[in-house]
Amino acid sequence: MSTVTHAPKGLEGVVATTSSICYIDGQRGVLAYRGIDIHELADHSSFEETCYLLWFGRLPSRSELEELRQRLAEERKLDPSILQRLHLAPKQALPMDVLRTIVSALSFYDPEQRNNDRQANIHKAIRLTSQIAMIVAAYDRIRKGLEVVESDRSLSHAANFLLLLNGKHPSKTAERALDIALILHADHELNASTFAARVTAATLSDMHSAITSAIGALKGPLHGGANEAVFRILETIERSGSDPVDYVRGMLAQKNKIPGFGHRVYHTEDPRATHLRQMSRDLGKTSGQSKWFECSHQIENFMKADRKLNANVDFYSASTYHILGIDVDLFTPVFAVSRISGWTAHVIEQLDDNRLIRPRAEYVGPEYPVHYTPMENR
Amino acid sequence: MSTVTHAPKGLEGVVATTSSICYIDGQRGVLAYRGIDIHELADHSSFEETCYLLWFGRLPSRSELEELRQRLAEERKLDPSILQRLHLAPKQALPMDVLRTIVSALSFYDPEQRNNDRQANIHKAIRLTSQIAMIVAAYDRIRKGLEVVESDRSLSHAANFLLLLNGKHPSKTAERALDIALILHADHELNASTFAARVTAATLSDMHSAITSAIGALKGPLHGGANEAVFRILETIERSGSDPVDYVRGMLAQKNKIPGFGHRVYHTEDPRATHLRQMSRDLGKTSGQSKWFECSHQIENFMKADRKLNANVDFYSASTYHILGIDVDLFTPVFAVSRISGWTAHVIEQLDDNRLIRPRAEYVGPEYPVHYTPMENR
Repeated sequence: MSTVTHAPKGLEGVVATTSSICYIDGQRGVLAYRGIDIHELADHSSFEETCYLLWFGRLPSRSELEELRQRLAEERKLDPSILQRLHLAPKQALPMDVLRTIVSALSFYDPEQRNNDRQANIHKAIRLTSQIAMIVAAYDRIRKGLEVVESDRSLSHAANFLLLLNGKHPSKTAERALDIALILHADHELNASTFAARVTAATLSDMHSAITSAIGALKGPLHGGANEAVFRILETIERSGSDPVDYVRGMLAQKNKIPGFGHRVYHTEDPRATHLRQMSRDLGKTSGQSKWFECSHQIENFMKADRKLNANVDFYSASTYHILGIDVDLFTPVFAVSRISGWTAHVIEQLDDNRLIRPRAEYVGPEYPVHYTPMENR
Repeated sequence: MSTVTHAPKGLEGVVATTSSICYIDGQRGVLAYRGIDIHELADHSSFEETCYLLWFGRLPSRSELEELRQRLAEERKLDPSILQRLHLAPKQALPMDVLRTIVSALSFYDPEQRNNDRQANIHKAIRLTSQIAMIVAAYDRIRKGLEVVESDRSLSHAANFLLLLNGKHPSKTAERALDIALILHADHELNASTFAARVTAATLSDMHSAITSAIGALKGPLHGGANEAVFRILETIERSGSDPVDYVRGMLAQKNKIPGFGHRVYHTEDPRATHLRQMSRDLGKTSGQSKWFECSHQIENFMKADRKLNANVDFYSASTYHILGIDVDLFTPVFAVSRISGWTAHVIEQLDDNRLIRPRAEYVGPEYPVHYTPMENR
């Protein structure tokens, strides 16, 4: 009989697996992909290069990067029936529900759907990374009654996504801002959606099943849904003309949690927040929309002073995405547009040395045996 | 700083949560729902009553059971666009991929999709239980070019499912056999798909996201996909005229695992296998198809004697489902038709006392910090 260990609630602090993808030091506020600090990647890398790093474990040579860029660009195509399915979705459907459904449907058209080996899964990672961006943008256009935009295969992943979303080529500043945001959100060790992907993959199911699970988990307000919740607060403050600190104080008085603050892993500043704060400030200035940064910054200072809570990745991504022209209910889908790179890397790693993930529950229900009472005696 | 505990691979033997739904004693071979032994439920209960037991924690009164039966029957309806989506799926799509996709799409039409409270989730549990059965049957008819059959609201869940699948009312024997199979598969504590559902639900995502994750996890051959793998072996043996024991010996010699044997939790006979063995034997006799039971029984005896491995729930469900006229690639979907009751009960329980499920990974990659090398120096 195997020994039974009681884990803390939510598996907090439980090491569920080894992984060579993401290094986090929650005390020092360090995040690194394959050992490379997120600050260096944000300063020098691109989302495509970060994908290579996550999938293959090292930075690419020039020709390897060029090949990956081309393959990602070539996969900018969707089966016509995927577009039909997007048109069938009611206009009020939640974008994360649509994304989860359509990514699941992509499995029907994947040429390697019956193949779960490493090579096939790398191909699927490339296809899914291209396609998820297309689906998010296409659904947004369709629900607004706009034409779906054709991809431009010469563009970077970030620029093409903004083109598909807005119908015009983005400025270099907007492209680079989104590119950095995609790098910052690409992976974060065993966060809940990545863990859901690994639990699913570990039954030897398939890549599309694992990614569909991840999207479903990311949707939750305790995970990816938090950036949307942050912006809804900023919007309410702006509309009502409230003082940001008073508003947040009011929320706290009513025992509400403030989204975008605190993190189970970081006990100091989330290193991603450092970049996103700067980005929110800079984009605010260049676009003449500094109000979102200023409101956010007041809330951040108050939460830090009053509650000793640090802003996390979600807090400044809200104002950043808004200034980039992204609708608030697309914030979490945009998180998925980035995190697909990490999810797929984790699925591939899980399958490299797989074991079914099947913990136990401690039974606390009616004591066994309760006898079956016939209906006439109930 | 929280303490970090290293868990065994696959979280084996780790108690990840408390639960009052399912009691398992792996040493004595006991399985009970809400304290009631699975043998008593298989002998006396119905799938509808078992759903009530799982969702509400006790057996229903006559009027409570009648009300649940009516509500399940009333929910035997699908939005027309769901049928359009089923028609859009390519005929060769895997039924589990279709089920995962369509269940995800059901979220668009759920009248309580933006409500994640207990009452709404009980309603969703009822709707999903009705609808999953309809989807499995409808896709099977559509891919075969047959008309989708109308539900009969006077029938039990098991009988209606067989009607939708086969286009004719089932015999009482077939109805009762499926009803028992649905009871036996309804829940099994923190199996991988249920765990995937709870991980997803714990981000405060939603019921449809959680169930979509569960379906994706169930698909895998290390989980629900095993019953399909069992029947493919029985079929190969039958077609080739091989001796069952020789065939299995050959598989073992090539280091293949034999699906349907062994279980991480049971160290004696899986109590569900006891019923399914009997059902496979009885149905084989009454239908003149004893060959499937006999072949299975020879394999079971050999595996027990030679490998000390017991048959699990998947082993005899394969021959049972085949005799009930269910196609082999629907075996895992039929598992989902039952397990939806347990999945939804677990999601509701998770949300009653929720905490984000977010373990850690032990980093074993390139030692931090690896510096970002500029392209020209690679």
